Amino acid sequence: MVGLTLSKRKISQALDLVPRMKSQGYARPCVERRRKWLEQKTGCRLINVGAHSIPSDEMRGNVENPLGAAQTPLGVAGPLLINGLEAQDIFYVPLATTEGALVRSYERGMVALTRAGGVTTRVYIDENRVSPVFLFESVGEAYDFAQSLPDKLENIRAEAESTTRHGKLRRLECHAIGREVIVNFSYFTGDAQGMNMIVKATEQACRWIVDHSHARRFYVFSGFSSEKRASGSLLAGGKGKKVIAGAALPKQIVKSYLHTTPVQLCDMWHHTMLGHVQANAIGYNGHYANGLAAIFLACGQDVANIANSAVGITNFEVTEDGDLYASVTLPSLTVATVGGGTGLGTSRECLEMLGCAGSGWAAKFAEIVAATILAGELSMGSAIASDEFVHAHETYGRNRPNEVSIQ
Amino acid sequence: MVGLTLSKRKISQALDLVPRMKSQGYARPCVERRRKWLEQKTGCRLINVGAHSIPSDEMRGNVENPLGAAQTPLGVAGPLLINGLEAQDIFYVPLATTEGALVRSYERGMVALTRAGGVTTRVYIDENRVSPVFLFESVGEAYDFAQSLPDKLENIRAEAESTTRHGKLRRLECHAIGREVIVNFSYFTGDAQGMNMIVKATEQACRWIVDHSHARRFYVFSGFSSEKRASGSLLAGGKGKKVIAGAALPKQIVKSYLHTTPVQLCDMWHHTMLGHVQANAIGYNGHYANGLAAIFLACGQDVANIANSAVGITNFEVTEDGDLYASVTLPSLTVATVGGGTGLGTSRECLEMLGCAGSGWAAKFAEIVAATILAGELSMGSAIASDEFVHAHETYGRNRPNEVSIQ
Amino acid sequence: MVGLTLSKRKISQALDLVPRMKSQGYARPCVERRRKWLEQKTGCRLINVGAHSIPSDEMRGNVENPLGAAQTPLGVAGPLLINGLEAQDIFYVPLATTEGALVRSYERGMVALTRAGGVTTRVYIDENRVSPVFLFESVGEAYDFAQSLPDKLENIRAEAESTTRHGKLRRLECHAIGREVIVNFSYFTGDAQGMNMIVKATEQACRWIVDHSHARRFYVFSGFSSEKRASGSLLAGGKGKKVIAGAALPKQIVKSYLHTTPVQLCDMWHHTMLGHVQANAIGYNGHYANGLAAIFLACGQDVANIANSAVGITNFEVTEDGDLYASVTLPSLTVATVGGGTGLGTSRECLEMLGCAGSGWAAKFAEIVAATILAGELSMGSAIASDEFVHAHETYGRNRPNEVSIQ
Amino acid sequence: MVGLTLSKRKISQALDLVPRMKSQGYARPCVERRRKWLEQKTGCRLINVGAHSIPSDEMRGNVENPLGAAQTPLGVAGPLLINGLEAQDIFYVPLATTEGALVRSYERGMVALTRAGGVTTRVYIDENRVSPVFLFESVGEAYDFAQSLPDKLENIRAEAESTTRHGKLRRLECHAIGREVIVNFSYFTGDAQGMNMIVKATEQACRWIVDHSHARRFYVFSGFSSEKRASGSLLAGGKGKKVIAGAALPKQIVKSYLHTTPVQLCDMWHHTMLGHVQANAIGYNGHYANGLAAIFLACGQDVANIANSAVGITNFEVTEDGDLYASVTLPSLTVATVGGGTGLGTSRECLEMLGCAGSGWAAKFAEIVAATILAGELSMGSAIASDEFVHAHETYGRNRPNEVSIQ
Repeated sequence: MVGLTLSKRKISQALDLVPRMKSQGYARPCVERRRKWLEQKTGCRLINVGAHSIPSDEMRGNVENPLGAAQTPLGVAGPLLINGLEAQDIFYVPLATTEGALVRSYERGMVALTRAGGVTTRVYIDENRVSPVFLFESVGEAYDFAQSLPDKLENIRAEAESTTRHGKLRRLECHAIGREVIVNFSYFTGDAQGMNMIVKATEQACRWIVDHSHARRFYVFSGFSSEKRASGSLLAGGKGKKVIAGAALPKQIVKSYLHTTPVQLCDMWHHTMLGHVQANAIGYNGHYANGLAAIFLACGQDVANIANSAVGITNFEVTEDGDLYASVTLPSLTVATVGGGTGLGTSRECLEMLGCAGSGWAAKFAEIVAATILAGELSMGSAIASDEFVHAHETYGRNRPNEVSIQ
Repeated sequence: MVGLTLSKRKISQALDLVPRMKSQGYARPCVERRRKWLEQKTGCRLINVGAHSIPSDEMRGNVENPLGAAQTPLGVAGPLLINGLEAQDIFYVPLATTEGALVRSYERGMVALTRAGGVTTRVYIDENRVSPVFLFESVGEAYDFAQSLPDKLENIRAEAESTTRHGKLRRLECHAIGREVIVNFSYFTGDAQGMNMIVKATEQACRWIVDHSHARRFYVFSGFSSEKRASGSLLAGGKGKKVIAGAALPKQIVKSYLHTTPVQLCDMWHHTMLGHVQANAIGYNGHYANGLAAIFLACGQDVANIANSAVGITNFEVTEDGDLYASVTLPSLTVATVGGGTGLGTSRECLEMLGCAGSGWAAKFAEIVAATILAGELSMGSAIASDEFVHAHETYGRNRPNEVSIQ
Repeated sequence: MVGLTLSKRKISQALDLVPRMKSQGYARPCVERRRKWLEQKTGCRLINVGAHSIPSDEMRGNVENPLGAAQTPLGVAGPLLINGLEAQDIFYVPLATTEGALVRSYERGMVALTRAGGVTTRVYIDENRVSPVFLFESVGEAYDFAQSLPDKLENIRAEAESTTRHGKLRRLECHAIGREVIVNFSYFTGDAQGMNMIVKATEQACRWIVDHSHARRFYVFSGFSSEKRASGSLLAGGKGKKVIAGAALPKQIVKSYLHTTPVQLCDMWHHTMLGHVQANAIGYNGHYANGLAAIFLACGQDVANIANSAVGITNFEVTEDGDLYASVTLPSLTVATVGGGTGLGTSRECLEMLGCAGSGWAAKFAEIVAATILAGELSMGSAIASDEFVHAHETYGRNRPNEVSIQ
Repeated sequence: MVGLTLSKRKISQALDLVPRMKSQGYARPCVERRRKWLEQKTGCRLINVGAHSIPSDEMRGNVENPLGAAQTPLGVAGPLLINGLEAQDIFYVPLATTEGALVRSYERGMVALTRAGGVTTRVYIDENRVSPVFLFESVGEAYDFAQSLPDKLENIRAEAESTTRHGKLRRLECHAIGREVIVNFSYFTGDAQGMNMIVKATEQACRWIVDHSHARRFYVFSGFSSEKRASGSLLAGGKGKKVIAGAALPKQIVKSYLHTTPVQLCDMWHHTMLGHVQANAIGYNGHYANGLAAIFLACGQDVANIANSAVGITNFEVTEDGDLYASVTLPSLTVATVGGGTGLGTSRECLEMLGCAGSGWAAKFAEIVAATILAGELSMGSAIASDEFVHAHETYGRNRPNEVSIQ
């Protein structure tokens, strides 16, 4: 730490930029030099930060001013039997976290689900979007623009797709507000998360639109798309994959593995739903963010996408036979098996663990994520319903770990 | 990967649990054995997963069924001059991310802010909450309970605080719905995030309350507290720290460093605010989740808390002199400098880099986080206002990195 | 008033139903008898209630147990010049209200708009919806249902339209949640509000669907349609008409008539938008409900539809020339010129005043409503921006009316 | 109707203001002259509009440019037994509406509730608010202001209360956003709705605050208070009265009067709650707006306040004995028994019918409104659960009224 408050006069001298280096300094010696500079500047030691196994050269395109790598404890939970359209197997799911009891809790849910016959998963929507806004002189001009846009779809598609081999423009949708029009561009992006790809494509299309309309200007982002933000409109889908996972669990399994009953779980759902409503929550869920963070981090997903992906709806119902039907609906899950951080060191290994590394596996990976989230909701919901929540965290949490066994 | 769909008959044989080991298997050989088991089971290699520098024994309390660690590229951005009540210095901020251009973008914002005289930060609220719900027979009983609760505050506090040395119960607040009453327990939790601590305390208090009222039962979670979930009520604060960061930037600095003008930034704000409103967003922000994810991951925070922490409001205004005033308001920032993952390997080093490792620094850390978020909002907002967003991602992103320099 | 608390034993004797009469008692003597009965029962006099000009026989289908009519003071505001696609004229708008200053305020906005060249109006969407939900055994069955629904559209349309001459089924849209599927039925309903019509049509279609699918059952209302409720999803349209009204106002007119400047109005917009965001408001508006209530009440609309119709977005912008552009966007305006209360006494006269009585005028009426709302937003916004709000209410409000003149 | 589109040149000639008259023209001949002028202008006849029994002089302070009165059919529903703190009696509730079946539906709910022993009602909060925003130069100044505000409470109260005999300032609450601070002023307003009263008081206080702080300026409305708008923050109360009404209904009564069972009602609640969540609704309710509109209109309330009053939460639960517990929670009910339109003709008579006319009855009236809303929720919910909804509207609606009887 610099250690003292600087007078204004001294500030300009002290404003040392992070050192600029040849080719932006991704070579190992450059990274080391940067680390040393920072150690000197701040008086701290960065030994663990330097102890990474990802070649620093491979970090280009993922980070700038590289120092090394952050390490997060990685555990595994399973077995998790999934009966999806893409994922049809038993899985062991890697989870990176620092929250004690999380892995054990998800594991508990997975074992219960698997014993009950597994989780059914379905992907309803598979697309991503960018939502530029076009500005006009008047309400009349905006209206004429919105009316005529469908006729221009093929030209717009041609412009957009000229910039990408993978992105496919599926639909345009207008939301007019006063004299401006938000145009939602929906794309299929293959196995990539695809934001960079489709923002570039959309910007290209927007330039063409401005040249062929009365639009005064555009902003490539209108705020509508809800990338990396929570919003109510995410519930309708369109930002990433809409995935649903559900399972029927006989009441005996609910009792043995989850220490509660279908009726108690539904009562808990009812009352905690009221709490969500009172809080103006978006959707209803116990802790999607926990499972998403752990699996995103393990598998090289962009963890900032938790903000949109954690929007969804968990449901518990008692069936006519008195058993449990549990489901999770994730309308805006943004996951990828290519691009971003998916190819780096531990991320690639974790995706391989799931049979999801590389092209062709994004939908399968989405199904696995949804099934994992279901396991977490089931386990946490049961802990609340049966008053075991505190006990579980006492047993596995940071402060007071004890010896325990699980069947 | 197991590689073939199993017939129902074979499932029960195949349901191998993750191996159970002595003392839950945190010793290095145990971790290695578990990793080998998984490699065999899934047919993948976990070399990088095993290449960590955190002693596996130290992972106890943070993860179960440990395999090793996930690695995320770590960069640094700065200098960032902060004039807070707790943070008063120039900082270099560690950011773990796999999104190309992110570190460079935050760095750009930090340099502009620092050249402009730095960021002012203030912590308004510093507490965390648990919100159990109590169930009654009738609307009348629920009403009587809520009316009489203030009289029981001292007893309730005594019960709650009997379980913790650090948590202090500050306030109770009732939200009645029909014949049930959600009671919001607000605590000061020192430098810890504190959820485990205060859930335990609250459960203890709830048992006492049930014994001393007509409550039929309680659920320790009502869903109201919005832990790790986005909700509108987070804007009012109470879940973590409410922190505000703001800065005035002369128009010349906006021009030189951010390539736009205060008027353009405000116009962009106006139109993207409309997009947020159209999307039913909570609050308004460009990409809080990006900066939060990067700094949380670097500094051992619980990344699942992004879900609540990313709720907030960014504001850009033109001052009477034609300069820019920019601010971010984060009402629900949950950060810690003790407990959770803060003490592990790279996390502790990153906190030390900021002078925030250990007790006494949580408020300071919160101010640094808020100032960092402001830098990101400023830089991204400017990129949108000046149409440079795509260019920046092309330059630094995964696909096509070029040589670039920055002043 | 009955005047004393009754003991439980006496309750059953005292439970007098409102008297049942021949043909449900719409004839004038029946209404009188009912009124007398109630006067006796409650000890009050209902002289004004009986002093109505609507023949009580004509109330059949609009009210049960009729007593008479409620009277609300009715004023008029104008002139309002509208350049719409349907409304192209100068209008004088009837407003029924008990809020002093309201008519004067709307009149002020109308005069300013008219002097500025009038209001442009456009109807983007013209439909209404019912959203039943179908329940299934499993996530898999729900998925198969949603996938196959498009193939059944023609059958479903035939069933739905068999019950109505006016309603036309336009689209179906699925929202799956776990093992259930909400199906949004979008209809064109001509000049009627149409809820009764399309609920009946939808129920008919639902019975067919249940017979031709694996659905266990359906509820004709899922809660999704947001009829007479505020919800975020209303911003996307589909519940009634999406109408936009906008106008450019030279700064001189803003100054003369509204006593403020375009810059001040936009500054006010900016800061009050932040207040809306902080309040978790849906959309942004000053007081749509005021104008909607007054015109709905005058023109025989269902005033309960204010709950959905008052959702929208007001915008104020400074143009490049320093003038004002003002707009309102009402995505969910439910209005009618036939059916409901539109044909009764004062309602029909008020619709005639606008040239909107009977078939063929619903879109025109919607444009007039939107232009009226714009006038109200402009006037109230200006009063806030120029600190005249309190003064105006002092001048015209209930408590202290003075002599005033307006140019 | 004017009948032809006017050329721009002719517009200025045609812009006839509504005639200005002596003392603003409230005398009967003035009103008649205005009506004649409008009949001539628009070519319509306004016979019913003129057929009112409210003396036009008494309309001063409630409407400007008076033409006469709007008439709405008025029915009555009951008996409704209420066991409140203020309302303890059997009531017959006046409902003004044009929606066929509405009165019958509420009546059905009331009879069921009364047979079951009546409705329990409680008022939790009784206040109203105005939320000005204060603007500062910097985040630091805003922070200092918010910190020091509690010390100024007595001065602020003195200023505010100097303008009113009835309004009492209860609390101030700050919501800082960047460099501005919204200050929520909470008042007790007696039996009046009180907005005019407390806006005036608050403006007075704001002037004092600006003189005694570094605030650059204030806006008396920040948008936060949610007057006549729906917002999530209304659920926490503070805008009007928070009232809860609940009742236990034996399953036999549910069966006989409502044709459904407690289990079916709860199942319906569960699935329609999901629909509300999917729609981003605020709270959960079947059709509060219907009942509120009808009783507000009958009793001279400001119907625009439906926008905030219709926010709330309905709940249905099965008790341990298999009976039903039903409740409604209305956190933001704005009702009055003095001021506004409460004293006019039919309004006063309707309030008298409930024993609520004049001072001292606002809380009682709020309880009656809440109990009425409960009746409507119960009846409509049952109609959905038992698939009788369409049938009921067919029977009583506008199009096809039949002979029916009800027990």
